[in-house]
Amino acid sequence: MSIARHDSSSILSQAVEHGNTVYLAGVVAKGLDKDIKGQTKEVLDEVDRLLGKCGSHKSKLLQAQIWVTDIRNRAPMNEVWTAWADAKNLPARACVEAKLADPRALVEIMVIAAK
Amino acid sequence: MSIARHDSSSILSQAVEHGNTVYLAGVVAKGLDKDIKGQTKEVLDEVDRLLGKCGSHKSKLLQAQIWVTDIRNRAPMNEVWTAWADAKNLPARACVEAKLADPRALVEIMVIAAK
Amino acid sequence: MSIARHDSSSILSQAVEHGNTVYLAGVVAKGLDKDIKGQTKEVLDEVDRLLGKCGSHKSKLLQAQIWVTDIRNRAPMNEVWTAWADAKNLPARACVEAKLADPRALVEIMVIAAK
Repeated sequence: MSIARHDSSSILSQAVEHGNTVYLAGVVAKGLDKDIKGQTKEVLDEVDRLLGKCGSHKSKLLQAQIWVTDIRNRAPMNEVWTAWADAKNLPARACVEAKLADPRALVEIMVIAAK
Repeated sequence: MSIARHDSSSILSQAVEHGNTVYLAGVVAKGLDKDIKGQTKEVLDEVDRLLGKCGSHKSKLLQAQIWVTDIRNRAPMNEVWTAWADAKNLPARACVEAKLADPRALVEIMVIAAK
Repeated sequence: MSIARHDSSSILSQAVEHGNTVYLAGVVAKGLDKDIKGQTKEVLDEVDRLLGKCGSHKSKLLQAQIWVTDIRNRAPMNEVWTAWADAKNLPARACVEAKLADPRALVEIMVIAAK
């Protein structure tokens, strides 16, 4: 099965295609001064962009892992998530609390999708 | 490859089939008053149920991620895990500590399996 | 699709092959007295060994999850990671802070790769 990589930095690729499966990196917002809702919106916009690059789409999400730096931010994150997600094609998901690389980041999302 | 989704809520699907691979959501116990062993047993019973819905089985587990809210609960969790798991068909696994959505939840398990 | 399992203990398999995809367990160093760089090097050597057993290779990494017990160790971990990784074939990746099973472990890495 073929492998294709997109948007590689010195440490990771933002997206990797393997056959019919797409793995995205953990995405954080660029606007780290924003609140949890603003950061979640930015993250999901970037997920859209990366999935598009791979010929995938949010309606084909398989698994999502979400880390929030304060578990109390799960509710406002979920508001933005629900408004964004395809309600008829929701992925398996887990959301736990963890400290992230940049202390200003409030949320990080990493997904696996189908093509 | 076909995608099939099961037991969807407003934010996630409890199980997603993609070709020959099955992704389950992070599962927590319903009986959140139970101790770590009781919660782990409930979680694994639910994993059994969801895998069955997808035509999979615990003997076909590929990867398991386990979060415990207190890493000292890893040992009693493992006792229940070992009694449940198919000793000849164990998945790759990681277990780390994390705060979970419900403060009474002590363990959350998310697996990937084959069909 | 066939499943093959390698290096199984009583709780997990260190590597599981499923068709063209390989799932490794979360790997920690054996030399737990070493610093973050030394532990990361040991972890990545073990990842090499396990991938080799499965007929895979670090140039075929799809996804990597990294847990560090102190997020400030991400920078020295990344130094060792970058020196090890195939710069033209980097996986999707997420790195968050989490407490690990052994209190002396500083880093744990779990990967998915192609064959």
